[in-house]
Amino acid sequence: MFYIGIDIGGMSIKGGLVNEKGEILFKHTLVTEPKKPSEEIVRDIASVVERVIEGSGVKRDEIAGVGVGCPGSVHDEAGIVRYCCNINLVGTPLRDMLASITGIGAVKISNDANCAALAETMFGAGEGAKNTVMVTLGTGVGTGIVVEGKLLVGNKSAGAEGGHITINFSGPECGCKKRGHFEAYASATALMGQTRAACEKHPESLLAEIAKDDGISGKTVFIAAKRGDKVAKAVINRYIKYVGIGLVNFANIFFPEVIIIGGGISNEGDAVIKPLRRYVQKNVYGAQYNPEIKVVAATLKNDAGIIGAAALLM
Amino acid sequence: MFYIGIDIGGMSIKGGLVNEKGEILFKHTLVTEPKKPSEEIVRDIASVVERVIEGSGVKRDEIAGVGVGCPGSVHDEAGIVRYCCNINLVGTPLRDMLASITGIGAVKISNDANCAALAETMFGAGEGAKNTVMVTLGTGVGTGIVVEGKLLVGNKSAGAEGGHITINFSGPECGCKKRGHFEAYASATALMGQTRAACEKHPESLLAEIAKDDGISGKTVFIAAKRGDKVAKAVINRYIKYVGIGLVNFANIFFPEVIIIGGGISNEGDAVIKPLRRYVQKNVYGAQYNPEIKVVAATLKNDAGIIGAAALLM
Repeated sequence: MFYIGIDIGGMSIKGGLVNEKGEILFKHTLVTEPKKPSEEIVRDIASVVERVIEGSGVKRDEIAGVGVGCPGSVHDEAGIVRYCCNINLVGTPLRDMLASITGIGAVKISNDANCAALAETMFGAGEGAKNTVMVTLGTGVGTGIVVEGKLLVGNKSAGAEGGHITINFSGPECGCKKRGHFEAYASATALMGQTRAACEKHPESLLAEIAKDDGISGKTVFIAAKRGDKVAKAVINRYIKYVGIGLVNFANIFFPEVIIIGGGISNEGDAVIKPLRRYVQKNVYGAQYNPEIKVVAATLKNDAGIIGAAALLM
Repeated sequence: MFYIGIDIGGMSIKGGLVNEKGEILFKHTLVTEPKKPSEEIVRDIASVVERVIEGSGVKRDEIAGVGVGCPGSVHDEAGIVRYCCNINLVGTPLRDMLASITGIGAVKISNDANCAALAETMFGAGEGAKNTVMVTLGTGVGTGIVVEGKLLVGNKSAGAEGGHITINFSGPECGCKKRGHFEAYASATALMGQTRAACEKHPESLLAEIAKDDGISGKTVFIAAKRGDKVAKAVINRYIKYVGIGLVNFANIFFPEVIIIGGGISNEGDAVIKPLRRYVQKNVYGAQYNPEIKVVAATLKNDAGIIGAAALLM
């Protein structure tokens, strides 16, 4: 059997035909028009499903179902997008509408970070593990958690909001207006703020020079550090500690076999992963009695959303 | 069928015959001799099992099995006590030794906080819920977590150490030597420290007077607050915030139907539970889109350990 996975993003709606090994056999992408009426957005999603079927040449009766990953708060069981800040799908009964338009009965939806975590656990960096925590360090901080092979979603799928745990209650304000959340320290956005502050404090540094020439992104501090800048290295060391504190919190609660780091920051590879691994091993509770927790970078990258959405039906 | 539940503590080994409704039909208690050789401690546990069988008059073939709750780090799957700071059971293959001595094949062991959470979820304050987090505010802070009706234990049962999540990374040292853990703010021990500091700062307060006369316990600050002392009320308000921060962290990760508060502090009832409920509802992520999380006091009290140990086999 085959599965269709749909990954809805603010920029594009990506669809793919996925086999039971988690391989994408055919892909189709449509530009998202996020402000359209929700019914039209759902029709666009359905059109991606149809294009994947047509383009791949798969027979309809070989399709086990359609899985959809969507940003924001998704009520998996009810099949409804509860909240989505970028795309006009709030309150939309996406699952049933999509099933009705496509005529494919088996449709499942979940949060996109959940889909990515499921994909990485089944077919990527966490393959073989039963318990994983995936932390996506991007514009925000997303978490997807697998417990004994199943996605942890909480009551009404309202859980797994690990970006919004407090790690320093007197800390800076998070996007959600509460103080000291993990996201306010560990997102790429937060790292850019930390980089900016360091540039202002050390205008003589190479970091400040690079920032002045090229602007600040999540990569700036890593570029400067590679060129030997001490100010940049200090920013990275502190950022690693911030991320590490959140990872250790998840480790102490879940004690997963693997923690998977995704998002733009994970593209820095060993510069981020190795020190995080050391931090977790040093600070996890009961390290002396317990097996080591692997900390690894996500491997499926941009395909994780499609594969994980498809995996909702496996 | 009937179940035997054993609750091992630093002071006593408590055993009970439990039916399928979670009711204790017969109880027997033996004083713990924590420094004995581990084999002798296991024999003591087995003797409690035998006394429960004899005393209750249950037939051996009506016993579905024996469950044991033990403080410290327990490897459920392997049946071994990995670490226990009070009782000489470290490294003991408790499950198999107990099965061998009693001749009862079905023996399961788990951490005592896990057992309490399971008991409260199945038969106590969380009855009917599929997702619960139990937080025990005592000498330390213990957590027991139930996800979709099953205890969350993590890889090699090393998880659910929710007392050791960081809520303020520059905060005071925890018993485990790391900084700013939930336990360092929210345990009864921490509250006593907060009470002591307030007494030193406000020697003129009623709180300081009561502390001087009766010494400081986890109850002192509540006694003074009931008599109208403002200093005591301020200590409680701050303590509620500390506990609330941890509860919100668990809420954002698990979004359980119910958070259950156990331990000595929970005996203060509404003085603690009501403000914690308000704090969680106000601060949980996405409160406006999601069902309210119940925050309630544990109801099974001292029996939770026996009932939960028995429930390991249900």
